[in-house]
Amino acid sequence: MSKPAFLGIDWGTTNRRVHVLGADGFLLTTQADDKGVLSLTRDQFPAEIAALRARFGDLTVIAAGMVGSARGWVEVPYLPCPVTLGELAGRLCWVEPGRTAIVPGVAIADPLRPEVMRGEEVQILGAVQAGLVPPDALLCQPGTHSKWATLSGGTLTGFRTAMTGELFALLRRHSLLSGLLDGPVEPGPDFDAGLALAMQGAPLGRLFGERAAALLGLRDPASVAARVSGLLIGGDVAEQGLAPGQPVHLLADGMLARLYATAIGAAGGTVHPVSSQAAFLAGIIRICLHQNLWS
Amino acid sequence: MSKPAFLGIDWGTTNRRVHVLGADGFLLTTQADDKGVLSLTRDQFPAEIAALRARFGDLTVIAAGMVGSARGWVEVPYLPCPVTLGELAGRLCWVEPGRTAIVPGVAIADPLRPEVMRGEEVQILGAVQAGLVPPDALLCQPGTHSKWATLSGGTLTGFRTAMTGELFALLRRHSLLSGLLDGPVEPGPDFDAGLALAMQGAPLGRLFGERAAALLGLRDPASVAARVSGLLIGGDVAEQGLAPGQPVHLLADGMLARLYATAIGAAGGTVHPVSSQAAFLAGIIRICLHQNLWS
Repeated sequence: MSKPAFLGIDWGTTNRRVHVLGADGFLLTTQADDKGVLSLTRDQFPAEIAALRARFGDLTVIAAGMVGSARGWVEVPYLPCPVTLGELAGRLCWVEPGRTAIVPGVAIADPLRPEVMRGEEVQILGAVQAGLVPPDALLCQPGTHSKWATLSGGTLTGFRTAMTGELFALLRRHSLLSGLLDGPVEPGPDFDAGLALAMQGAPLGRLFGERAAALLGLRDPASVAARVSGLLIGGDVAEQGLAPGQPVHLLADGMLARLYATAIGAAGGTVHPVSSQAAFLAGIIRICLHQNLWS
Repeated sequence: MSKPAFLGIDWGTTNRRVHVLGADGFLLTTQADDKGVLSLTRDQFPAEIAALRARFGDLTVIAAGMVGSARGWVEVPYLPCPVTLGELAGRLCWVEPGRTAIVPGVAIADPLRPEVMRGEEVQILGAVQAGLVPPDALLCQPGTHSKWATLSGGTLTGFRTAMTGELFALLRRHSLLSGLLDGPVEPGPDFDAGLALAMQGAPLGRLFGERAAALLGLRDPASVAARVSGLLIGGDVAEQGLAPGQPVHLLADGMLARLYATAIGAAGGTVHPVSSQAAFLAGIIRICLHQNLWS
């Protein structure tokens, strides 16, 4: 086994993944925990980094994601879209010079269609550099805030965000529907029924019907969560206006990958699955190489 | 001034309006308070009614709204749509025989498009009986759950619900946007800008842009609440697919009436305002008359 060479951290709002990369570029180990930026105050970050070095070695650290936001460690200015991986690597924010850096996020400062991302850019540009997706591609990254990104000639040229995951969580936790949304969410007839409703348009106008159906005893309450998930994910996918057979490169893992693959297929798209973790690693390794940080 | 004849109560989830009607059919007084059904347990309703009789006289009570739901006093079965005011009046649920009745709600038990309402039916059918709206009409009742109802020949023949108000409240209280939604919500350029975005379609996909714009310093944070309100109300109205100049009878009062009137106008509809309180009174009086309850 090769010696550890650096730490690549995918540091999000609620979760953190610390990847230990070896000198040969292979992943040695990953530590996943819930030390997302919202669980830390600004002055706790240096101690967190010190604890990681105490555990994994005195390594260079490259972090991406919400760690670079106003709620994170240091607010790193966004780079404007279009953007390449080389530009990301060339504009690292060195919190500790030569030792600890944060990757900038990407923004579209168009008043008519403003957008921001932090963390997804490493996956997107890593995936294309590693050949996991072609240089001209539509990518989907589902999550609390799902991203739909466009690559042209290997450059990230545009993206849009839908609050699909957050909306489902709001409905489940705080809404009139909350008592109805504790059932399982997985691909199957209930999820498909929600997708079919969403494809008819106006998914928001269908939400109340799920409560009405429950009040009227028209269906099994355990089916409602999967139906509402289908409605929201189906609405998210339908908004993209996919052409028949259009390839969608789906950067996702686990259940969310299965749900979005089903929805994209129902909307007529052709799904190409890509592991979001593999895409992140491909990106963070190349950022490190670009900086001649490899030890 | 005529003697009090009966109490008509619009008893909703969070609020209650007790109307004291005189023998000549005129409104004597209204007591509005926050004793909605969620503030009361089932066994507290008799004491509430007794307190109202102690204050206003030993009168017949006709109540409508969520008081007849599973979370209210007595769960009253829905009447199927289409429905008339005479049918509502003929199917009162007498909690205390001859003394206290609850008006049934209305349901559409169509598994493809299920719907329920409680309370709005008194306004809708009251408005048409009193000539406040024509016998063939499209009505809009904005609120936590906005209703769009169709009258044909004076009969309520269909309706749909959008969770527009609840969604705005969820976003303001619990979402990523919550810190941005404390500004004023009123008709004006910001609300209009939200409407314009909604009319382009896919309003949900525009929500995240409001946060992005704030992060990028593209606009005044105080404008975001009105913009998001415009997005959601505009999306609600756009889903109705109004024909150019189509009359919409807007049963509303206060700021919500102004916001929906603006949105309906922006979508090409022609607004006919109707006071929702006047419509409720018209309905509850006629239900009482129908029952020969007039003293």
